[in-house]
Amino acid sequence: LQQLLDQSPKSDWRAIDPDNTLYMELPAGRVIIELVPAFAPNHVKNIKALVREAYFDGAVIVRSQDNYVVQWGFPDDAPRAIKQAQKTLKAEFDGPIGRPIPFTALADPDTYAPQVGFSLGFPVARNPELGKSWLVHCYAMVGAGRDTDADSGNGDELYAVNGQSPRNLDRNVTLVGRVIQGMDLLSVMPRGRGDLGFYQHAEERTPIKSVTLASDLAPAARVALEALRTDSQTFAAVVEGRRNRKDAWYKVSAGRVGVCNVPLPVRAPAEPPTH
Amino acid sequence: LQQLLDQSPKSDWRAIDPDNTLYMELPAGRVIIELVPAFAPNHVKNIKALVREAYFDGAVIVRSQDNYVVQWGFPDDAPRAIKQAQKTLKAEFDGPIGRPIPFTALADPDTYAPQVGFSLGFPVARNPELGKSWLVHCYAMVGAGRDTDADSGNGDELYAVNGQSPRNLDRNVTLVGRVIQGMDLLSVMPRGRGDLGFYQHAEERTPIKSVTLASDLAPAARVALEALRTDSQTFAAVVEGRRNRKDAWYKVSAGRVGVCNVPLPVRAPAEPPTH
Repeated sequence: LQQLLDQSPKSDWRAIDPDNTLYMELPAGRVIIELVPAFAPNHVKNIKALVREAYFDGAVIVRSQDNYVVQWGFPDDAPRAIKQAQKTLKAEFDGPIGRPIPFTALADPDTYAPQVGFSLGFPVARNPELGKSWLVHCYAMVGAGRDTDADSGNGDELYAVNGQSPRNLDRNVTLVGRVIQGMDLLSVMPRGRGDLGFYQHAEERTPIKSVTLASDLAPAARVALEALRTDSQTFAAVVEGRRNRKDAWYKVSAGRVGVCNVPLPVRAPAEPPTH
Repeated sequence: LQQLLDQSPKSDWRAIDPDNTLYMELPAGRVIIELVPAFAPNHVKNIKALVREAYFDGAVIVRSQDNYVVQWGFPDDAPRAIKQAQKTLKAEFDGPIGRPIPFTALADPDTYAPQVGFSLGFPVARNPELGKSWLVHCYAMVGAGRDTDADSGNGDELYAVNGQSPRNLDRNVTLVGRVIQGMDLLSVMPRGRGDLGFYQHAEERTPIKSVTLASDLAPAARVALEALRTDSQTFAAVVEGRRNRKDAWYKVSAGRVGVCNVPLPVRAPAEPPTH
């Protein structure tokens, strides 16, 4: 994989847009999330509004359920008031296939959807019969928690998948992005002992110092990151390499790969040569 | 799910065999592993031999790779000598379908194998064309690490899956069992910063106080556990409940479930009524 990436042309990579990038500061370090407005425009807009009113500064990890999700926001017993942002939003669970979004299909069958693949760097499923497409719940995908009503979420409570892809949640929650750096800080949060992995005591909740939109920082304060384009030749080679492992260690090659088993490489861009 | 389990007849549960149960004592608590000799007889036998010569007492967590595996044994720079147990074993990656093992097939398609389901409480795949069946790499499954040679493993280095099922490993590693309690202690191990998530410094490695076979303890010192039989009516209802979620929260039911998305319930048996 590394060899493939090292040999890839610069044009196969896209710069992560600072206007869709969140920096979440934990005691152990920074978590970076890429938002995907093409799939959840209203939720992404509202998350940015929440970030800009400093809603998440002082929020906490409220839940860590093993092999499911880690979730952050404010606990029911210590809520925070929303100032300007929307308090509820219409669900953005899926959208019309016809959206002008590139789609790179995977050849292999999927348990949950008739078609799976990648759009704009994110794992996606499609059902041509329904005319729908949607983001899928792979590891590190970020969604907006909601109550029983489909339209009760607004992005003020977010979660990231920390285990086997809970694909049953697809089309039931609005996915808004993906953790592209620092998932290893979220995944090791001690599991909560309450129902659904919620922490039962305030002192168990890891504090979130701040969440910042990268584009609100001076360019020099941003982390330059680029992602492999999922509509590139190099990505096609990555997928094929995962379908058919050929190194000396593998004795049997699956000849298949799941949508949540394909790596979505992100890297710091190479520095221009200096003297 | 809980309601279904609470209503299930006692006969739908099987006692976990103490002779196939390992207790691994970590500083944070106990991890319990069920071994499955029907699929990996020689590896299970050798792991028991290693346990009985106290091989794992004082071993360490050597590796924690995010969204892949957590691994334990002895690091290359501080190996332990094996006394009586075998040092290498023939691979037990798969076996003939014809083995007299009950198999409960899942109705839904799988990305990696023509047929998936459950045998003896474990997730299994089958390929009738090859005449082969094998355990699959779902979350919490435990395997025996090996070097490049297929027959180089012996169970002295074990790993558990801590993320999206790495199904590409199926038929490439001998799976030997599953963590049935305490996976939440292994899954939160800080990720190693070395290649493949190996820890680079001795002090990062969590010590394993001991690994004991439950049947080597007095009955009173054992943890009584029972698992839902995967060939039971209750399990069929669990699978169907996961395929078609029907509570008020779910707006769209997948109508499908993946082999690694089906829960495999384990519980303490109800105490007999006392006076």
